[in-house]
Amino acid sequence: MAKTDNMPLVGIVMGSDSDLPVMAKAADMLEELGIGYEIRIISAHREPDVLIEWARGAQDRGIRVMIAGAGMAAALPGMCAALSVLPVIGVPLSGKCLDGMDAVFSILQMPPGVPVATMAIDGAKNGAILAAKILALSDPELSAKLKDYSRRQKEQVMAKDAKLQEKGCMK
Amino acid sequence: MAKTDNMPLVGIVMGSDSDLPVMAKAADMLEELGIGYEIRIISAHREPDVLIEWARGAQDRGIRVMIAGAGMAAALPGMCAALSVLPVIGVPLSGKCLDGMDAVFSILQMPPGVPVATMAIDGAKNGAILAAKILALSDPELSAKLKDYSRRQKEQVMAKDAKLQEKGCMK
Amino acid sequence: MAKTDNMPLVGIVMGSDSDLPVMAKAADMLEELGIGYEIRIISAHREPDVLIEWARGAQDRGIRVMIAGAGMAAALPGMCAALSVLPVIGVPLSGKCLDGMDAVFSILQMPPGVPVATMAIDGAKNGAILAAKILALSDPELSAKLKDYSRRQKEQVMAKDAKLQEKGCMK
Amino acid sequence: MAKTDNMPLVGIVMGSDSDLPVMAKAADMLEELGIGYEIRIISAHREPDVLIEWARGAQDRGIRVMIAGAGMAAALPGMCAALSVLPVIGVPLSGKCLDGMDAVFSILQMPPGVPVATMAIDGAKNGAILAAKILALSDPELSAKLKDYSRRQKEQVMAKDAKLQEKGCMK
Amino acid sequence: MAKTDNMPLVGIVMGSDSDLPVMAKAADMLEELGIGYEIRIISAHREPDVLIEWARGAQDRGIRVMIAGAGMAAALPGMCAALSVLPVIGVPLSGKCLDGMDAVFSILQMPPGVPVATMAIDGAKNGAILAAKILALSDPELSAKLKDYSRRQKEQVMAKDAKLQEKGCMK
Amino acid sequence: MAKTDNMPLVGIVMGSDSDLPVMAKAADMLEELGIGYEIRIISAHREPDVLIEWARGAQDRGIRVMIAGAGMAAALPGMCAALSVLPVIGVPLSGKCLDGMDAVFSILQMPPGVPVATMAIDGAKNGAILAAKILALSDPELSAKLKDYSRRQKEQVMAKDAKLQEKGCMK
Amino acid sequence: MAKTDNMPLVGIVMGSDSDLPVMAKAADMLEELGIGYEIRIISAHREPDVLIEWARGAQDRGIRVMIAGAGMAAALPGMCAALSVLPVIGVPLSGKCLDGMDAVFSILQMPPGVPVATMAIDGAKNGAILAAKILALSDPELSAKLKDYSRRQKEQVMAKDAKLQEKGCMK
Amino acid sequence: MAKTDNMPLVGIVMGSDSDLPVMAKAADMLEELGIGYEIRIISAHREPDVLIEWARGAQDRGIRVMIAGAGMAAALPGMCAALSVLPVIGVPLSGKCLDGMDAVFSILQMPPGVPVATMAIDGAKNGAILAAKILALSDPELSAKLKDYSRRQKEQVMAKDAKLQEKGCMK
Repeated sequence: MAKTDNMPLVGIVMGSDSDLPVMAKAADMLEELGIGYEIRIISAHREPDVLIEWARGAQDRGIRVMIAGAGMAAALPGMCAALSVLPVIGVPLSGKCLDGMDAVFSILQMPPGVPVATMAIDGAKNGAILAAKILALSDPELSAKLKDYSRRQKEQVMAKDAKLQEKGCMK
Repeated sequence: MAKTDNMPLVGIVMGSDSDLPVMAKAADMLEELGIGYEIRIISAHREPDVLIEWARGAQDRGIRVMIAGAGMAAALPGMCAALSVLPVIGVPLSGKCLDGMDAVFSILQMPPGVPVATMAIDGAKNGAILAAKILALSDPELSAKLKDYSRRQKEQVMAKDAKLQEKGCMK
Repeated sequence: MAKTDNMPLVGIVMGSDSDLPVMAKAADMLEELGIGYEIRIISAHREPDVLIEWARGAQDRGIRVMIAGAGMAAALPGMCAALSVLPVIGVPLSGKCLDGMDAVFSILQMPPGVPVATMAIDGAKNGAILAAKILALSDPELSAKLKDYSRRQKEQVMAKDAKLQEKGCMK
Repeated sequence: MAKTDNMPLVGIVMGSDSDLPVMAKAADMLEELGIGYEIRIISAHREPDVLIEWARGAQDRGIRVMIAGAGMAAALPGMCAALSVLPVIGVPLSGKCLDGMDAVFSILQMPPGVPVATMAIDGAKNGAILAAKILALSDPELSAKLKDYSRRQKEQVMAKDAKLQEKGCMK
Repeated sequence: MAKTDNMPLVGIVMGSDSDLPVMAKAADMLEELGIGYEIRIISAHREPDVLIEWARGAQDRGIRVMIAGAGMAAALPGMCAALSVLPVIGVPLSGKCLDGMDAVFSILQMPPGVPVATMAIDGAKNGAILAAKILALSDPELSAKLKDYSRRQKEQVMAKDAKLQEKGCMK
Repeated sequence: MAKTDNMPLVGIVMGSDSDLPVMAKAADMLEELGIGYEIRIISAHREPDVLIEWARGAQDRGIRVMIAGAGMAAALPGMCAALSVLPVIGVPLSGKCLDGMDAVFSILQMPPGVPVATMAIDGAKNGAILAAKILALSDPELSAKLKDYSRRQKEQVMAKDAKLQEKGCMK
Repeated sequence: MAKTDNMPLVGIVMGSDSDLPVMAKAADMLEELGIGYEIRIISAHREPDVLIEWARGAQDRGIRVMIAGAGMAAALPGMCAALSVLPVIGVPLSGKCLDGMDAVFSILQMPPGVPVATMAIDGAKNGAILAAKILALSDPELSAKLKDYSRRQKEQVMAKDAKLQEKGCMK
Repeated sequence: MAKTDNMPLVGIVMGSDSDLPVMAKAADMLEELGIGYEIRIISAHREPDVLIEWARGAQDRGIRVMIAGAGMAAALPGMCAALSVLPVIGVPLSGKCLDGMDAVFSILQMPPGVPVATMAIDGAKNGAILAAKILALSDPELSAKLKDYSRRQKEQVMAKDAKLQEKGCMK
């Protein structure tokens, strides 16, 4: 099981190994925040049984939030939401065509009763941050880490602006 | 079981009873062609177990083609294709927003290995005709009925044209 | 303060009173699940100060999840996410033109670091259910209610299917 | 005639030789499943006579399913459906502009009475698999091959997941 | 034959009698300009033989320009262009869904060698005016009529502006 | 000339009298702010000479900002910008089809050197407010009026929120 | 004047020299068919006077058809149609963004009375062929050349198909 | 402070340093016209406080027009307009996906009362020219410079046309 030393609280799942370069950013972010996670390649359309078992068992394995990334007719996030009471975060992935809009519609437009928290196209990192925000509701230490992360983000923008003020934008 | 006297060869399934006015056109067409069918309301997102049982058992019940209609993040047709070796025809349904384009993308853009034969938006009637064309490959009588249907379609257009020639298009 | 007897855990906010008919569905759902909430009309573009005060103070008031609904150039959900560490759920609202796609893009495409959990167009009810799923992670009673809600959803679809089997779809 | 040793059961047709790299994937898949096929370059707009002769004669030549791939204003699949009672599978092809959406609309939105089973953009492989699913309805050996193919697909995903579990996703 | 007293120089064709209310505007405009025309309902997908005969014979019947209106997967204009050397004007028609964009793509995106002069969505009147502009190249009298029509258009706008200047736009 | 008592500083122009119900909102807003204006119906495509004269002469008539509203292939705003050094505000108007997206692209996507300040679809009121913001740069009284308008906007939202707090959103 | 030995009958115009690589295909095609032409770079937005003079004078210079290519907010074709009674063919050009859809809408969606014969995106060659089809109405020699061109197109496709039949599509 | 010798009259702001290559074109253009400017990197979503301070203080610092460039869910221009009475010019920036359409909708579709003058996708140069047109209303010298710039633009197109006339477009 690819995981950190911490007990997995987040289940990352994607439909194909070609999704790994993008979805790994969710794993990276969780690592950075010290949140344990599972990461799996499971295809809703090619192995529904594996998905059903994984999604149904997630809560009992201690998973509290799922992050499901998929492209094209992206059924994976919605089926995770159908198979579990846990909050599901969906990451629409861009492919060769359509800039990921097919996946956006397939993930976003869930019917009443079965929400999926949809992220920006290829927004795997934000998937991890939203998962962390959810977990932080009952984890003050994580909440502090998120505030710190937020502060560093701000500082990075300020540093770039300071450099621009110093050097100007002309060649 | 809502069915004709004939043994069901086609399984019509839709995700919500609000889809019935459109999907009933598939049933009407099958009736007209004398093809037995099942018609079910099963939500992929609200009752995945029911869907799994229905789709997995379809072949053993004698079903040869499925017609699955759904709107929005329309996972139903793709999950039917994932759960059965039978050919699956998908009908994207329009709703309050987006003119059915969300459903088109969710049904059309299936990954390699798991095709869904996608019809026009709200094209339930064509779903039935395609199912009939498939069944007709091993049913000469049905093939003759389809040719007859096709001939009548042509005659209807010709009759409308004849009327136009007679009366003109001016008020 | 429009709220239930319970202490508000969810902050519902919308940009205009014309959004109320849709956003009230989020309130209805929270009521049904017995979750306390605030509901506010605050325009990000017309009264940024009010928004800043409301969003910045949310955590201290006991709010744990925000649901922000907006149409057109929908900055409200993103600004809530910018102003608070709490998880923010965004509901893109359809208007006279574009079927809500302007709001979808304005809410969905958040930059790295500042996620908004985007719901379907006009999906206020799902916003409430996602909020409940998040709160249920530390509230077993609520978790049970959600499972019950899910079960009833399934039963309703089954009842509609049963009626279809009984009566058929023909006129 | 480019064909396998088996008698051609599937007619692959495309509008231009520039479509060959994508449409050859349909031929590859049929080869893999041991299904005989014809493969032709015929332009609906440049040589309608050739198309009419080919499509009208298909059934008599033993063809049971057509796979028609075309880009831009893709009239080829629809005209095949107009000219034959056989089931027609349409493959919208992407080009320099529009990511294939022009072809999607031209193939998908067929009028009542003349269905085309539309595949994903550039989904030629799925066109072959759907053709195989249709043929397998009266060919138990092919049906077994498809189940085997499906099983191998699942195993490939599982193998990739196993590798991920072993090696992790970190660099 | 629905025609004016003049010999038909323009062939108007549409795919369905439901297209008549829009396509009649082309006939009205030709009447107004004193140009003889044929007007036919011929479905490319339901009666390709009728279309082939009509389009192939057009030049010999004296037709000089075709105006073809169609909705959805609008193959009619492109097939007219494929079957005749005459200039073909295509009118994309809007339907229940997609505001006619499916027809725009199906008519506009013709491959090199087979142009269709595409008009605005539901732009049947402009189809007639373009046909008149083409015919006017060798008909000075018609050219004068078109200039007169153009002048009257201008005067109508000027009269509306004059009324606005007189009455103002306030209630 | 439809104008207020004040000398016209803003030139409102639209392509058709059917645009008047929307464009009158720009006039209403200018009235409310006490800004003099011209309002004209001039079609870029039907009377280019009238447009050229009006736009070229605007600066000499004392006009400082133009507001040009048009639908479909909306050339009017861009031609105003081509014909005058004055700032031009473009208002894309929605019509029967496409929700005004045709006008958005025709107005927004101006080439380098010839900007048009594009407003929201049917955003005529905002066109007037932007014109006022521009004029206010050298008119302290108008600047004060705009701040007052802004304050009232805020108060209106606050009043609606207060009413919601008082009455709640339940039926 | 860039022209052939023949007297110019077609006026090609484009908005920028960056359009030349695409628009030169129209010139190439006219050369191939022996049709004289002018080819000009004239920006509707940067030099309206030059455009007005060129378009207004076209008929007197002997021009019978205009081909106007432009990208983005492509006003050029529509303004040509506004300034001349000649038939105008518009070629929407793709640019860095939007795949030419901005130009399609700006050229296609002309108001009643002022048609532009819109070609496919970057379809300059088809612009020339349509111009030739129009000129051929009164030029039997050109008509024969077009039939010959059409025949060669067909032969080329047949040759490619023959090669495929000979060699097959496998690697 | 990156600025010219002149006192800053224009405030350029962008959400990320990755926007600098495009937004620098606005600075270049202002330099060319001799207009003083500030240029800042400030993220609406990562450092709302910095934005509030910058935008609120702009008028007092002497800024008269803001140019705000942002991509994706581009809240920056709208928040500038919410926080200041100054005219705000918005530049939607294209990114990895969607060709900047997400930013177009987020910037263009502002609610009544809070306009943003939206430029073409990546149209930073036009942002500067519009700012100059606004400033030129009370600066005759700048107005003369703009007329000169406009004249040079025209001359450049004429020179390119002259070269085409001389050399022709053939290879």
